[in-house]
Amino acid sequence: MRALVIDNGLRLEKNYPTPTPPPGEALVRVLQAGICNTDLEILKGYQNFTGVPGHEFVGEVEQAVGREELIGQRVAGEINAACGVCATCRAGRPTHCPQRTTLGIARRAGAFADYLVLPFENLHPLPASVSDDQAVFVEPLAAACEILEQVKLRPDDRVAVIGDGKLGLLCAQVVATTGCHLIAFGRHAEKLQILEQRGLTTTIDLNTFEPQSLDIVVEVTGTPSGFELARQLVRPRGSIVLKSTYQGEALPVNLTQIVVDEITLIGSRCGPFEPAIQLLANKQVDVESLIQARYPLNAGVTAFERAAQKGMLKVIVEMNRDQ
Amino acid sequence: MRALVIDNGLRLEKNYPTPTPPPGEALVRVLQAGICNTDLEILKGYQNFTGVPGHEFVGEVEQAVGREELIGQRVAGEINAACGVCATCRAGRPTHCPQRTTLGIARRAGAFADYLVLPFENLHPLPASVSDDQAVFVEPLAAACEILEQVKLRPDDRVAVIGDGKLGLLCAQVVATTGCHLIAFGRHAEKLQILEQRGLTTTIDLNTFEPQSLDIVVEVTGTPSGFELARQLVRPRGSIVLKSTYQGEALPVNLTQIVVDEITLIGSRCGPFEPAIQLLANKQVDVESLIQARYPLNAGVTAFERAAQKGMLKVIVEMNRDQ
Repeated sequence: MRALVIDNGLRLEKNYPTPTPPPGEALVRVLQAGICNTDLEILKGYQNFTGVPGHEFVGEVEQAVGREELIGQRVAGEINAACGVCATCRAGRPTHCPQRTTLGIARRAGAFADYLVLPFENLHPLPASVSDDQAVFVEPLAAACEILEQVKLRPDDRVAVIGDGKLGLLCAQVVATTGCHLIAFGRHAEKLQILEQRGLTTTIDLNTFEPQSLDIVVEVTGTPSGFELARQLVRPRGSIVLKSTYQGEALPVNLTQIVVDEITLIGSRCGPFEPAIQLLANKQVDVESLIQARYPLNAGVTAFERAAQKGMLKVIVEMNRDQ
Repeated sequence: MRALVIDNGLRLEKNYPTPTPPPGEALVRVLQAGICNTDLEILKGYQNFTGVPGHEFVGEVEQAVGREELIGQRVAGEINAACGVCATCRAGRPTHCPQRTTLGIARRAGAFADYLVLPFENLHPLPASVSDDQAVFVEPLAAACEILEQVKLRPDDRVAVIGDGKLGLLCAQVVATTGCHLIAFGRHAEKLQILEQRGLTTTIDLNTFEPQSLDIVVEVTGTPSGFELARQLVRPRGSIVLKSTYQGEALPVNLTQIVVDEITLIGSRCGPFEPAIQLLANKQVDVESLIQARYPLNAGVTAFERAAQKGMLKVIVEMNRDQ
């Protein structure tokens, strides 16, 4: 099969071995996959991953021994394949299983290929009302939905989402579904426009905010300045949701201020797929406006270069466009 | 009146002006006051405070115009005097009122004196079953009780309290009341012995712990190594309660790990007085064993020097011992 492969850079291989699903796993023909910032980080060396990257995809099940009803179904897929038997899995936290493999991120070939394999339980069949383009966003949208699992947002809560990148735009739309008083902050008026068109309130002007005026701040920039801004805006006893990873080893954090103001910092990563699929089916979230470019798999290296350009939103790789 | 005064060092003043309570506040004759690590930090310059330090006390109300039923009552006192009318106060967070004064810490003379003044609503009358010695611990014990306000501890939770200083020993005893699986970790077997005598499990051996094995870690050392240990011990999706302030401006924190493991960091400061008083009245917490020295107010400077010695637990200043 064809596959994009990371191994001292990124290259297209035309005769990469098609994976063979072990018992309990399905062979999925990939239809489309999206390029995520994590993919770009992995290409730079994050996680020391070599192999096929890619973890945002929509595909069709081709083989599923013992679960034949899955065959032919269009699916999105959870990216962490857990052992299912360790204490962490039994405690209901399979996405944190220490033995887990992660699609295109850790010890499992990913979605920028004609085929991938995932355990049956990772697959979520998609309703016809969710298009392929939408379905590519199920995984990052699920990550945005994790916010609502971790923080109870009330309609009278004052909330900011900081960052107007791909994940920031998804987080803002998910947070907005709660009806809270939300302002989305970013540096790019043209990106915030996507939110404005959905009726959300946005700003590029920091003077919009009073210091310590917000109940909850969702930090999605992954930058020291974004974290510092979140810290300035959150009120005493408020919460900061950390939705993005940070480059480099560590950030200087004034923990004394966290203690004195009784701030809660909440690390937030992968989230639940079913609410994300439902939001897409209900048209409560606009993801299509985030798509800025499409490339066939054969031009995958170019697709990655394009995705790495400053300010780019989603670049989609289509597997069958050039067959 | 007599008062210990911080102003380029600490000195005893024998003719310091006795405070006059404004409307809504009471004049309290101080019986005893405890020296807290925060007092020692303030003496080194923390908060740029000048004046009378001290915020852990037991006293007797002498004047209370309009609330005469308070007169003669033995009281503990909440240390934050809030404005009562700002948005923060109206939202039910008076201890975070931006206009607040704080007894012996910020813009309000403290307890190492013959008299102090506090608003009526800050005063908590004490039952006869709580001794003066115990009552001096109501304020720090309330801070320990704040943990239970912020984190729901279940009997099957695996918890560690890190740090065997004064506050650590209180936190461990408060956490133990929930019946959770608690191990108190510290560097001083003789201090941990106080907990062992109460039936708590303690250790000075880090090898007692598996990495990422604890649901909740309460960090009470206020040191970078204590924070790092908490980080190593907490499981994915677990919580670290930060119970102590940290010296210096900022600590390097690997926020990416916080995100990937979905850790929650919870800053924790002042807490509720009534549960603390109840724990003392019920003899559920041993505080007397923490008292290592007593000095009369006239020897208050010596008391501070003693309290600053490495490894000291509580030093109490008694106002009337030498009158």
